[in-house]
Amino acid sequence: MTKKLLRALAGEAVWPPPVWLMRQAGRYLPEYRALRDRAGDFLSLATTPALAAEVTLQPVRRFAMDGAILFSDILIVPWALGQGLRYAVGEGPVLPPIRDAAGVAALDIGRLDAAVAPIMETVRLVRAELGEAALIGFAGSPFTVACYMVEGGGSREFAEIRGMAHGQPALLERLTDLLVDATVRYLSAQVAAGAEAVMLFDSWSGVLSPRLFRRFVIEPTRIIVARLKALHPDVPVIGFPRLAGVMLGEYAAQTGVQAVAMDTGADPARVAAMVPATMALQGNLDPIALLAGGAAMRAEAESILAAMRGRPFVFNLGHGILPQTPPEHVGALVDHVRSS
Amino acid sequence: MTKKLLRALAGEAVWPPPVWLMRQAGRYLPEYRALRDRAGDFLSLATTPALAAEVTLQPVRRFAMDGAILFSDILIVPWALGQGLRYAVGEGPVLPPIRDAAGVAALDIGRLDAAVAPIMETVRLVRAELGEAALIGFAGSPFTVACYMVEGGGSREFAEIRGMAHGQPALLERLTDLLVDATVRYLSAQVAAGAEAVMLFDSWSGVLSPRLFRRFVIEPTRIIVARLKALHPDVPVIGFPRLAGVMLGEYAAQTGVQAVAMDTGADPARVAAMVPATMALQGNLDPIALLAGGAAMRAEAESILAAMRGRPFVFNLGHGILPQTPPEHVGALVDHVRSS
Repeated sequence: MTKKLLRALAGEAVWPPPVWLMRQAGRYLPEYRALRDRAGDFLSLATTPALAAEVTLQPVRRFAMDGAILFSDILIVPWALGQGLRYAVGEGPVLPPIRDAAGVAALDIGRLDAAVAPIMETVRLVRAELGEAALIGFAGSPFTVACYMVEGGGSREFAEIRGMAHGQPALLERLTDLLVDATVRYLSAQVAAGAEAVMLFDSWSGVLSPRLFRRFVIEPTRIIVARLKALHPDVPVIGFPRLAGVMLGEYAAQTGVQAVAMDTGADPARVAAMVPATMALQGNLDPIALLAGGAAMRAEAESILAAMRGRPFVFNLGHGILPQTPPEHVGALVDHVRSS
Repeated sequence: MTKKLLRALAGEAVWPPPVWLMRQAGRYLPEYRALRDRAGDFLSLATTPALAAEVTLQPVRRFAMDGAILFSDILIVPWALGQGLRYAVGEGPVLPPIRDAAGVAALDIGRLDAAVAPIMETVRLVRAELGEAALIGFAGSPFTVACYMVEGGGSREFAEIRGMAHGQPALLERLTDLLVDATVRYLSAQVAAGAEAVMLFDSWSGVLSPRLFRRFVIEPTRIIVARLKALHPDVPVIGFPRLAGVMLGEYAAQTGVQAVAMDTGADPARVAAMVPATMALQGNLDPIALLAGGAAMRAEAESILAAMRGRPFVFNLGHGILPQTPPEHVGALVDHVRSS
């Protein structure tokens, strides 16, 4: 029998809906923190198959989630292409910024397969352990990954890459093309190793003007989805164009994704009116409501469930789970969704 | 003859459209930097009528803008209510955070009129100097102002106020009610002193879930607009619900604002389809395109103008002008809009 999450992604109005949470494998879980302390740093944890597989499985065991998302990071691709990457304590990721043609030319897609081999081993280990939960692979979308590559890390405004998009669009296009190739290769390897669905995280697409959104978000996403479909026709792609706002309908219509993940601010009923009735939606409880717990959390969850009843839907958050979230709140949320 | 900007805000499809830019009085202008150095700090500049009026007028003289926006800050209201405010160099605003009922109770609306008296003098001085340009007063919307009051300054995530919205909604409502009263009083005084239109900046409304957006953005804005209308029926209110995304149509329909300002990511054609044909739209050139200048800037401006031709529209940016913007780019942009 097909897994519940995959049925929903295929367009079936499964009810109660399947549930998993972005960053469900993470710091809010004591068993995660214990394992992370053993691994040393984040990159070692993400590239040591036995540990990464264990971390991926922890929330599935604790909460019987319907989805297991590979424990990894969207910056694995630049790292695998040879751009240096380290995680500075309290600062987030740090990379030597790429700002010119030489920087793009120095990236080497020939390194990718060998670099991500341990991650494929993680995928195989997780898949072998999963029962009813479906395994979700993922990558960052080219634009969001390029944000970090060009800025050299996180940023509030991402002024460098936005300047490049306006002033040197051909250069950003060259980087985007390379990231499209690398992303297809990376996601396709995840599917070959056992991923049953994949998700494209586009955390920063909302900083672009509509013209640039079409050029650097919709178009590369469309190519990635088309190439993945050609290789793996039955594997659904979930797109998450965070802060896309009024561009969400166009993204849903033109990229070819099977499902769209909604951010915290998106009204599920309004988004439903912008996409085909058979397209699965995913989301979008405010992670702060999960942190608050209790009646506030139930009221928010209830308004999402009421809007999504009768259509294909996957319950999730609108953004990643916060590290200070009490694990019992997650348990209560999953129970609430399952009793809906 | 009614000023061009006011005709557009009243629903007339004036073409070429009137133009002004958010933060047009600011650090990118050498004449501003010279004056600011004389004033000492930002608060002194904003509360010294002769200097604030001069700063307000600088871009109008240099570029013949159709609108002059009062040189001030959205945090004038908490400052006037007695919450300490200082601008730390390189850090932005710092306030002692308000997190409980005692903090809200300590705010004193009785201080407001006297505290903002110098700002009303600025409004009078500016209005006396303006020719064809219309004078725009402004305030932050209650939610965005409360963001800074509760966090104690800027924030990437605004986790404190979002936690309060979920966990202590009655407390946030008390603060919101006080800010609604203060905002009506403050904007009404600006109109009495000579402001011909007012704008409500809601920079952070996009961080809220739809339920909370309705409660803490749409509802207080609706009350402010209704009370201003009762006092000054002919003064248009421009609402700027930044990052409202798919909630923009509901905001436009339910708050009573005459015009909606669009952020950088909003597609003007899609927004136009979400609001009445007689409602003025304002926006939304990417400030980074203005920084880049040249063909990139013209292409972005052109796509906005093409979408807005034939409807009431005010050309502007999607976010404030960046300090490193060359003033010549602003001149070139204004020329481009005027020749459209």
